[in-house]
Amino acid sequence: MAGNSIGSIFRLTTFGESHGIAIGGIIDGCPSGVSININDVQTELNRRKPGQSKITTQRKEGDFIELLSGVFEGETTGTPIGFLIRNSDAKSKDYDHLKEVFRPSHADKTYHDKYGVRDHRGGGRSSARETACRVVAGAIARQVLSSLGVKIWAYVSSVGEISVSKNYKELDSKTIDNSIVRCPDSSVADKMIDLIESVRTDGDSIGGVITCIVQNTPIGLGEPVFDKLHADLAKAMMGINAVKGFEYGSGFSSTTMRGSEHNDLLNVNRTMTNHAGGILGGISNGEDINMRIAFKPVATIMRSQDTLDDKGNKVVIKGKGRHDPCVVPRAVPIVEAMALLTILDHYLRNKSSRIQ
Amino acid sequence: MAGNSIGSIFRLTTFGESHGIAIGGIIDGCPSGVSININDVQTELNRRKPGQSKITTQRKEGDFIELLSGVFEGETTGTPIGFLIRNSDAKSKDYDHLKEVFRPSHADKTYHDKYGVRDHRGGGRSSARETACRVVAGAIARQVLSSLGVKIWAYVSSVGEISVSKNYKELDSKTIDNSIVRCPDSSVADKMIDLIESVRTDGDSIGGVITCIVQNTPIGLGEPVFDKLHADLAKAMMGINAVKGFEYGSGFSSTTMRGSEHNDLLNVNRTMTNHAGGILGGISNGEDINMRIAFKPVATIMRSQDTLDDKGNKVVIKGKGRHDPCVVPRAVPIVEAMALLTILDHYLRNKSSRIQ
Amino acid sequence: MAGNSIGSIFRLTTFGESHGIAIGGIIDGCPSGVSININDVQTELNRRKPGQSKITTQRKEGDFIELLSGVFEGETTGTPIGFLIRNSDAKSKDYDHLKEVFRPSHADKTYHDKYGVRDHRGGGRSSARETACRVVAGAIARQVLSSLGVKIWAYVSSVGEISVSKNYKELDSKTIDNSIVRCPDSSVADKMIDLIESVRTDGDSIGGVITCIVQNTPIGLGEPVFDKLHADLAKAMMGINAVKGFEYGSGFSSTTMRGSEHNDLLNVNRTMTNHAGGILGGISNGEDINMRIAFKPVATIMRSQDTLDDKGNKVVIKGKGRHDPCVVPRAVPIVEAMALLTILDHYLRNKSSRIQ
Amino acid sequence: MAGNSIGSIFRLTTFGESHGIAIGGIIDGCPSGVSININDVQTELNRRKPGQSKITTQRKEGDFIELLSGVFEGETTGTPIGFLIRNSDAKSKDYDHLKEVFRPSHADKTYHDKYGVRDHRGGGRSSARETACRVVAGAIARQVLSSLGVKIWAYVSSVGEISVSKNYKELDSKTIDNSIVRCPDSSVADKMIDLIESVRTDGDSIGGVITCIVQNTPIGLGEPVFDKLHADLAKAMMGINAVKGFEYGSGFSSTTMRGSEHNDLLNVNRTMTNHAGGILGGISNGEDINMRIAFKPVATIMRSQDTLDDKGNKVVIKGKGRHDPCVVPRAVPIVEAMALLTILDHYLRNKSSRIQ
Repeated sequence: MAGNSIGSIFRLTTFGESHGIAIGGIIDGCPSGVSININDVQTELNRRKPGQSKITTQRKEGDFIELLSGVFEGETTGTPIGFLIRNSDAKSKDYDHLKEVFRPSHADKTYHDKYGVRDHRGGGRSSARETACRVVAGAIARQVLSSLGVKIWAYVSSVGEISVSKNYKELDSKTIDNSIVRCPDSSVADKMIDLIESVRTDGDSIGGVITCIVQNTPIGLGEPVFDKLHADLAKAMMGINAVKGFEYGSGFSSTTMRGSEHNDLLNVNRTMTNHAGGILGGISNGEDINMRIAFKPVATIMRSQDTLDDKGNKVVIKGKGRHDPCVVPRAVPIVEAMALLTILDHYLRNKSSRIQ
Repeated sequence: MAGNSIGSIFRLTTFGESHGIAIGGIIDGCPSGVSININDVQTELNRRKPGQSKITTQRKEGDFIELLSGVFEGETTGTPIGFLIRNSDAKSKDYDHLKEVFRPSHADKTYHDKYGVRDHRGGGRSSARETACRVVAGAIARQVLSSLGVKIWAYVSSVGEISVSKNYKELDSKTIDNSIVRCPDSSVADKMIDLIESVRTDGDSIGGVITCIVQNTPIGLGEPVFDKLHADLAKAMMGINAVKGFEYGSGFSSTTMRGSEHNDLLNVNRTMTNHAGGILGGISNGEDINMRIAFKPVATIMRSQDTLDDKGNKVVIKGKGRHDPCVVPRAVPIVEAMALLTILDHYLRNKSSRIQ
Repeated sequence: MAGNSIGSIFRLTTFGESHGIAIGGIIDGCPSGVSININDVQTELNRRKPGQSKITTQRKEGDFIELLSGVFEGETTGTPIGFLIRNSDAKSKDYDHLKEVFRPSHADKTYHDKYGVRDHRGGGRSSARETACRVVAGAIARQVLSSLGVKIWAYVSSVGEISVSKNYKELDSKTIDNSIVRCPDSSVADKMIDLIESVRTDGDSIGGVITCIVQNTPIGLGEPVFDKLHADLAKAMMGINAVKGFEYGSGFSSTTMRGSEHNDLLNVNRTMTNHAGGILGGISNGEDINMRIAFKPVATIMRSQDTLDDKGNKVVIKGKGRHDPCVVPRAVPIVEAMALLTILDHYLRNKSSRIQ
Repeated sequence: MAGNSIGSIFRLTTFGESHGIAIGGIIDGCPSGVSININDVQTELNRRKPGQSKITTQRKEGDFIELLSGVFEGETTGTPIGFLIRNSDAKSKDYDHLKEVFRPSHADKTYHDKYGVRDHRGGGRSSARETACRVVAGAIARQVLSSLGVKIWAYVSSVGEISVSKNYKELDSKTIDNSIVRCPDSSVADKMIDLIESVRTDGDSIGGVITCIVQNTPIGLGEPVFDKLHADLAKAMMGINAVKGFEYGSGFSSTTMRGSEHNDLLNVNRTMTNHAGGILGGISNGEDINMRIAFKPVATIMRSQDTLDDKGNKVVIKGKGRHDPCVVPRAVPIVEAMALLTILDHYLRNKSSRIQ
């Protein structure tokens, strides 16, 4: 109800503020009997953590995952998995000047208006730091789904006006992390990095798009009518900080197409095209699910901006602290995590669709 | 869990197949003490019903709403509101040829694969007929929200390549229903109608976009971190048949913007721009919420198409029955309904955000 | 949230007031592929309906079940099952004298205080008439569970001071409906009937206990820690009108026992005793689940009583209308229904406990 | 779904095994603006902790509460409250002999059968150690409810055959903790302590009853029809380890009463009697809510018992480790916690019952 949980059966609840003692979460509903490799969870977490390259924030967090329960002798027991990530490098003093000021296009004022009180340090609960917990849960979901053959990967498909023109089928998912911008088309990746560095030099920020692919999805996932698989994927993705749009399959481009062009004709084992994006009537049909997620330029910039304080006075705020000029490279593991959580949850939900 | 409910407090559950006895639903969690005008509910339902103009399906349904409970002497009592719409013009024989055939880009095969059995008549549960129930619930939600000053409206902003270039602020919501295509820019509306008629003559279908506006939203609605207001709006909209994409505020266009350009500076009572689209950190800030929802061309076309039957044999299917060449005009009240349900639910959820 | 739903996967939502147009409900999450015999549902409903014998209310309701969706050609399709029972014999005028008066030990005043408005006719939503919908859903759940071998039955084990001394294993479930009081020990049954008739002659009412037995429960049902199987059974039973207490297995009598006496020693395939009542740590162990549910004497009596009107004035109310002097005979199918709903829901929930 | 959460708005999710690294939880939905005294939480936790007196287990746990989030400068912020209790005195070796053996009347075998794997140390997740997390959440709920004037207290009303005969109104809640058995009638308390010591000397255990009282409950709490206030209280209490029965108000004794005797006549501001137990039609009426909760004798005894190992072989098990001969003294704060959680959750739920 208060919005800090996602999933119906495989259900993640998170807690924690950016500059509090710790962030963490509970995964309830993880089936028993799954081998968990904690190192793989840590590796996934490292992909999201700050300070990993010259184009990300220089905030340094160890982001060390502590599993507290639910895994016994390397295997899930069916009981809830509690986990913790301590906040080690919380330079709260960097935020003292924000205690009574609302940063433009941040959640400062809406939290203030909704709750009356807020932890202003580093954005408190509204900080994207919270997404580390999703990456942990996603990494565990990945280990469950891998045993079922499902493969989920994402990459940066555009930064500003620079975008990948190749279809995802021409790209090699293994090369995504070869570039710090997480774009598997290396020539495009270089241009993206240049753009981000230029934007950073300007003290500015820039938006981008992440493409996410789900392969070998079991047929039959998704619950009509309100919990269509793509509706839950959309909600999961829109819940990531800075996301402004979602589309799957033919997406917005379908709106200018004709039915005769858009329909995916059925062949023996599969459809001949995949405008549907792997989902029909809200239910997976076994084809690849492909999605694009739009990220706005992050609001924190290293420039002076007009804003208000909590008394309603006009003030000028100057960017301080350590921030990402472009959020998409670090958002790749987060997007994957949200897809992993959603697909696994629907896999488990679908277990009840038939009596046998 | 099985996906036929939406909302946490104001919660709609629907039932019914396109060619069964009836469709209907239960609204649980409607607060007591709200005056309900049943005629206004019927009026809203009429906006969605088939056969209303030359550019929609000619299926005729009376779509007569029966309220069965929860309203006593014209006022809600806080108990669940049960309602029913009988299926009067169900020409089930039109669908006999589909019993063992899967129509391309329809949900026929995914339902078959998921459940093993299905009501094939008119798409059964996967038919957009189910959305009539959402319109009923939305109409009741509108009566609750109107008493709070909230105004929600939607219009067709594009059909194929023809789109409205004006900003929604230049349009008059009262004129939307003046055109059968539900576009308030009359010169654009005429072109849209021409296009739809041309597409229909071709036995084809075409996609489009609906824009939805929420005005006078109370500040503070939305539950971080997973149930952000826009995440729940996205899920609600993506749950409408034929929707392939969702964006709000600056949407996908934000991905090419810089932060210095995108940030909405705070002025005394509001922001000076509204790239945010009325929501920051998942919480409404009182500015207009604007969304765009992408609809694909409907799959049913009056042409021969290659497909499979349920034994896996290749067959050719020819379009029969009565269908819409373009779904967006009739989808306008559905989009409004989904926004109404989501906003009211979050209004009620927000009642618990503070102890006082 | 507003309390008109029960179950997580197999989920029933009900609507309707005692003297409105109809009562009904939606069952969401019924697995597909289950054969449904509608006559068996009607038979179950007839066991609950008023006017069935001289010891029940003489209100006559046809209580005719209409299934509106979710069953196609005799089989569940996995889509929601909507159903309806019209209120045919609603003598609303019998209740005109109660419009502004709060009956003692009824829900009249609490509904008034909670909602501000209420449908006063026959208790409105607070009437036990609503439980007919539970019996419908329970009858469908029974058909699912029967295919799994599960057997659930209940009987009246006491009325006032008259109680069955035999263990349930000495009783024959097939004989329960042989007596109008639904007690399978015929000599005790006769005494119960005499007592109820005597109480009715006095214009009074009397309480009683129903015992409920679940046999052949699959092992492993129940979700620790909060959704223990017996916790959900308790909630389901306590949600029946007039219930004041619940116990299972050794129940309240366990509080005077010693562990050495109470512990159920394990033998090869089962426990040697069953003080546990078929559930350990909240999880079914395959032994019989046995429960006892305490019903108070119904509040409506044919006597004058002091009470208040809605202005706070003292008034005297005299019993009118048609009521049951003892609720337990008609509550037997309701108790069974609540057990059926709970056990089936947990059966489906347990499908996700292991990955394989 | 997997059962480790309770509450709809004020929602507690717990994790942790008896002998793992830590136990803990997340409280989601705590309203903002509530002052939290962490010392009061610790004090409550100390009431439950082991080793507090000669009649409890001698296991020593610091049970030190760490609040990790959601409270900023002493006040709740509306964000989730994460908390942790480290397991400091986990003598896991005491349990090596139980790795392949199922203790009689414990959850060992049902966990094994349900999940296939289990953490056998100290009962793992099935240990009552998990209830410490409930006490933490209950202590926070108490601070919210205290600001609303609600008072909740519980006491041991019977141990074995020794029971308090006084009505709760004759007892002084402030004296409950004066005796180590938590019975406010001091002469009865002495007898209870003697009995427990005698049982312990026998290497045996004994059951008991806890009575719980809710005073100054706001009128209107409880959601008909399935989430009646007493139904949710019953579920909450039945979810405590070792509980076998629940009753409220007149409880099981009502079954032998007549309506004319049981009905609570309305006087000016309240009812003249309170057989209802403060709840009518599932909704609080402002009178005291009183409940009795039955605890069985704990299964762990210091005697040899026949049982099975996980290969199905008969073995003899001898009691080892440190256990409570009678669970009720330490269960008093747990019972209070479950009542606190339930009442606060329903208080928040009721905020949506009326539009104004």
